[in-house]
Amino acid sequence: MLYLGVDLGGTNIKAALVQENGEILREGSRPTKLPRPAEAVCDDIAALCLTLMEEAGCGREEVGGIGVGCPGTVDDATGMVRYSNNLAWKNFPMGQYLQDRTGLRVRLGNDANVAALGEAVAGCAKGADSAVVVTLGTGVGGGVVLDGKMLVGHSGAASELGHMVLNAAANAPLCTCGRRGCFEVYSSATALIRMTREAMEAHPESLMHQLAARDGVNGKTAFDAKAAGDAAGTAVVEEYVHWLAVGVANIINIFFPQVIGLSGGVANQGENLLVPLRKAVEPMVFGHDFADPEKKTRIVCCTLGYRAGVIGAALLAKD
Amino acid sequence: MLYLGVDLGGTNIKAALVQENGEILREGSRPTKLPRPAEAVCDDIAALCLTLMEEAGCGREEVGGIGVGCPGTVDDATGMVRYSNNLAWKNFPMGQYLQDRTGLRVRLGNDANVAALGEAVAGCAKGADSAVVVTLGTGVGGGVVLDGKMLVGHSGAASELGHMVLNAAANAPLCTCGRRGCFEVYSSATALIRMTREAMEAHPESLMHQLAARDGVNGKTAFDAKAAGDAAGTAVVEEYVHWLAVGVANIINIFFPQVIGLSGGVANQGENLLVPLRKAVEPMVFGHDFADPEKKTRIVCCTLGYRAGVIGAALLAKD
Repeated sequence: MLYLGVDLGGTNIKAALVQENGEILREGSRPTKLPRPAEAVCDDIAALCLTLMEEAGCGREEVGGIGVGCPGTVDDATGMVRYSNNLAWKNFPMGQYLQDRTGLRVRLGNDANVAALGEAVAGCAKGADSAVVVTLGTGVGGGVVLDGKMLVGHSGAASELGHMVLNAAANAPLCTCGRRGCFEVYSSATALIRMTREAMEAHPESLMHQLAARDGVNGKTAFDAKAAGDAAGTAVVEEYVHWLAVGVANIINIFFPQVIGLSGGVANQGENLLVPLRKAVEPMVFGHDFADPEKKTRIVCCTLGYRAGVIGAALLAKD
Repeated sequence: MLYLGVDLGGTNIKAALVQENGEILREGSRPTKLPRPAEAVCDDIAALCLTLMEEAGCGREEVGGIGVGCPGTVDDATGMVRYSNNLAWKNFPMGQYLQDRTGLRVRLGNDANVAALGEAVAGCAKGADSAVVVTLGTGVGGGVVLDGKMLVGHSGAASELGHMVLNAAANAPLCTCGRRGCFEVYSSATALIRMTREAMEAHPESLMHQLAARDGVNGKTAFDAKAAGDAAGTAVVEEYVHWLAVGVANIINIFFPQVIGLSGGVANQGENLLVPLRKAVEPMVFGHDFADPEKKTRIVCCTLGYRAGVIGAALLAKD
């Protein structure tokens, strides 16, 4: 059986026709063209799905369903997109609408959760019994997959790992959610850039100024400066890694997953990030002194890139 | 079919013969009599189980297995107690040992997780799809139950909710785990007593001094003072509830469970604790502005008391 996976973003609709093992047979995309009505966006999703099937020469009977990863809060049981700030949708019956236009069964998931499902089943955590994906991008997103199932909770709301408070102090940085000291205000790419700017202000001598003059201040600036031996850049990376470690260790102490996969812009640092992170996390894990070394959580980078979304969505449809 | 549930504590071994629905048919207990060898403790567990069966007049063929809730880290798959600080056991093959002496299949779980399973399936969260139990005792323990299954993670280690850092500041109180600012150092009964003592020192006029002269300083002192209108006692309760709310809100943002059940000494405050807690948690929940009121997490007190352990253990054996 084949499955259609759709990753609905604010800029593009991506879709793929996917095999049971998570391999992509065919993929395509369309611009989301916001703002426009939910119905118009869904008409394009349906058309894209039918086009992929046609291009692959496969009939409706060969496709087990459509899975959609959607930004915001969805209720899979009723097929409703309850609220999406990015799409400006509220209580839209996406499941029914898409089913009417394609004749296929539709499953809905939050986009971060669905991408985590893709990584857990077919990417960085393939074969693992449990995985948590942490996305270090504009914010900190997350998805938890236990025994092949996404953790969506009673409300169907996403696993909002980014809004776990790590620092409940009154002077902690303010989060977009309205609280202070969330994981997101320390470990997003946005946070790394904030820390970089603060260090540049305090250190006019830092190499980071030259690097920023060329490319602007971005999530690579401090890492590049550290690689060149710059002290202020090194301190920024150390601070960033410290906070990321606090959040990752909390996730381990709660879930003890087999794998934690990092994705998003900052994760492109690969081993530059992973090596100090693993070292910082180790002593923070509860019971690390007597833990079975073979049962320790592996901290890795995600491997599927943007395809995690469409693959995970297809795997949700298969569920 | 019936199941035997054992709650192995540092002071007492409690056991019960339990029906499939979680109702207790017969129960009993023996002193644990530590320190003594693991084998001797397990001989008493086996004898207690066989006695309960005999007293109930039920044969081996009517009993589906024994479940044991054990303090420390267990590996249910291999039947090993990997490490228990309370019992001073390390890598003891409890499952095999008990099976040899009873002829019954044995399942192992961490005691806090197993008690959470009891509350989730047969207690405060009966009928819920997901529940998190937070025990406010000497430390902060926890157990997570999703679709009737305990979350034990890849390592089999407990869901160590108490060792989620809420305040990563360098001046945060030190936890017994070696880190600072854990949920446990703010929300355990021990923490409440520490806050009470600090407030008493700062406020010689407080009613708490009179209350403490009678009963000593305990987890009730500040609550009782608040009930009598004492300002310093009220401030202690407000501070305690604030931190408990931060931890509970983190748990909600991660799991969005249907129910959070509080147990342990502080939970005996019942509505005195729950009313201000629910009020403090509400604005901390991610997406609370647009959440479906019917899908909100219910925050309640646990209902099974000490029986949660034996009932949960029996339900584990049933699994």
